[in-house]
Amino acid sequence: MTTTPFERRTRDAQAALREAGADALVCFPSSNLFYLSGFSEDPGERHLFFLVPADGDPTFLIPDLYETQVRAATWTDDVRTWADSENPVAATEAAVSALGLPEGPQVLVDDTMWARFTQDLRAVLPEATFGLASEALAPLRVRKDEAELDALRRAGAAADAAMDRVRELGSDAVGMTEAELAADIETYLADAGGDGTAFETVVGAGDHGAMPHYRRGDREIRAGDPVVLDFGTRVDGYPSDQTRTVVFDGDPSAEFREVHEVVREAQAAAVAAVEPGIAAEAVDRAAREVIEAAGYGERFVHRTGHGVGLDVHEEPYVVAGNDRELEPGMVFSVEPGVYLPDRFGVRIEDLVVVTDEGCERLNDSDRGWEC
Amino acid sequence: MTTTPFERRTRDAQAALREAGADALVCFPSSNLFYLSGFSEDPGERHLFFLVPADGDPTFLIPDLYETQVRAATWTDDVRTWADSENPVAATEAAVSALGLPEGPQVLVDDTMWARFTQDLRAVLPEATFGLASEALAPLRVRKDEAELDALRRAGAAADAAMDRVRELGSDAVGMTEAELAADIETYLADAGGDGTAFETVVGAGDHGAMPHYRRGDREIRAGDPVVLDFGTRVDGYPSDQTRTVVFDGDPSAEFREVHEVVREAQAAAVAAVEPGIAAEAVDRAAREVIEAAGYGERFVHRTGHGVGLDVHEEPYVVAGNDRELEPGMVFSVEPGVYLPDRFGVRIEDLVVVTDEGCERLNDSDRGWEC
Repeated sequence: MTTTPFERRTRDAQAALREAGADALVCFPSSNLFYLSGFSEDPGERHLFFLVPADGDPTFLIPDLYETQVRAATWTDDVRTWADSENPVAATEAAVSALGLPEGPQVLVDDTMWARFTQDLRAVLPEATFGLASEALAPLRVRKDEAELDALRRAGAAADAAMDRVRELGSDAVGMTEAELAADIETYLADAGGDGTAFETVVGAGDHGAMPHYRRGDREIRAGDPVVLDFGTRVDGYPSDQTRTVVFDGDPSAEFREVHEVVREAQAAAVAAVEPGIAAEAVDRAAREVIEAAGYGERFVHRTGHGVGLDVHEEPYVVAGNDRELEPGMVFSVEPGVYLPDRFGVRIEDLVVVTDEGCERLNDSDRGWEC
Repeated sequence: MTTTPFERRTRDAQAALREAGADALVCFPSSNLFYLSGFSEDPGERHLFFLVPADGDPTFLIPDLYETQVRAATWTDDVRTWADSENPVAATEAAVSALGLPEGPQVLVDDTMWARFTQDLRAVLPEATFGLASEALAPLRVRKDEAELDALRRAGAAADAAMDRVRELGSDAVGMTEAELAADIETYLADAGGDGTAFETVVGAGDHGAMPHYRRGDREIRAGDPVVLDFGTRVDGYPSDQTRTVVFDGDPSAEFREVHEVVREAQAAAVAAVEPGIAAEAVDRAAREVIEAAGYGERFVHRTGHGVGLDVHEEPYVVAGNDRELEPGMVFSVEPGVYLPDRFGVRIEDLVVVTDEGCERLNDSDRGWEC
């Protein structure tokens, strides 16, 4: 019988638990759950745990209506179920007790586990001390294997294909609302083989683009409006994340043209800086220096990027103060931006993977503002 | 100056905190955050808290790049920011300390708050005891006000409009993959004024429909296939949630026709049972009795429904053992189902709101299987 990548990762995770002095890891519906078990689900109010002791075999505890799905998806045979008519805390207590943990165990839980579940774990393990799963798993997950990179490349290609179609809209996009254009982008992503969205699609027209975390609204896109487009889809669970700032029709201001060029240069400089052995913050600095030299340093109000894997935001963070060395297989966004409040914003973003010599872009559509 | 509904709810929440003996409530990006502050965001890795002391005014602690958005969305003036280059735990400590909590405070946190944030709150409040926000907020949120019902009705109407268009596909749906049909449903929802999806759209063809929590895949829909469709969108933050089981073309088996009729009768019986003063479990029993009488009791493997509000799953749960009395303004799903493993499933779901005399359906598209 061949070991699946999921079982292999679980065995590596157990070694990491032992090294960290932890006795068990408890996942709920999270990216760690998929990474280790092969089963994917959104967090919900029902108790669903994947319990991984430092030694021995893991156990699933699931609501019984998931049984067929979980058994089909996962490599492990030890699947316990509970019914809607039972008490899930008692079921949790029984499953935890079967792990045979030592007295006063050290237990790691998913970083994203809901308080309602950590409260229950604390109740059934009153002597335990709790830590976060990332302590043991982050070093494993930060370097992507070939299967993961393959999925990331295909997700990036789907985003590129969608962006090409957005550009083709040209002046047809004028008069559409931000929300309508977002819906079209999501259709283009699905047409290109993507599965849903990796995060809420952003379409920020005019001064909406000046809010770095604006999503979309009912505003109509006008001729001459700079429009920030930030979107992604998933392939085999892995996301794309791409930003372009475009003008669909009409003439933007001279200042917009200048700022767009500055951001584009900053983005290119940051991508050019990526190579194994340099600190993550050096990539941030490469982008920031270009923007500061152009006099917009105070308007670049966020970090240059974030790691991307099963989670759209994960290690390594490309930010001042992060001296973590880049390693081959790390994947992150490079997305400098300049925001002029009440006027417009410009952000340009690609994902890159660190290679032995430098980096490879995971998406590569046209970066210009002209449509 | 008029008090916004959000400020009014915060003041009600503070009264509930005092009644529960709690000293403060801490929200992170959650439905509680929107309910109380008017600001909506998805959970992310950056520290973003809405701190509500039992007395006095609440405080926002946010990453500085959210400042424009938060100030535009919320009624409170006390907004503290931290920059990507700062330590968010130190910023959290300062904001918590400014609340002036008593020694050994009782602090409620969002039920969905991530462990990475509750760990930090525990670190900056080592003497505190922690509980869940739902202890204080659930009684307020469970009865919807008119503004909330208006949004829920409009979301239900968008789902009805989408379902009507799905039926019109008829035999054109044969040969589409589940994922393609899901993408079309999402387009129809957006066309009808919905904002995104309320949860992952479910399209389960043939025996995929026999898995109660199946989502969708690459299987092509064939003539004669029963297809379970479960989908929803949002309007003003409030979701719809509707399920229909249809056959797009061809003749389904006699057993499918029988099971479909049983589920439809069970659903009608459960909706007819809804009125103020009866227990939530009585609605479950009304559906279950019909299905048991038809001999499929063991194949109805889940509860009859769940409350719906800003969260797609919330109180009240329509499940055996829940003797909570229904009150006017409560909104929940009524969704009995029968699942025959490796063959097919049937589920029919509508949302209802309890009224003074009975209930009102929030969606009402055709429930038959014929397209």
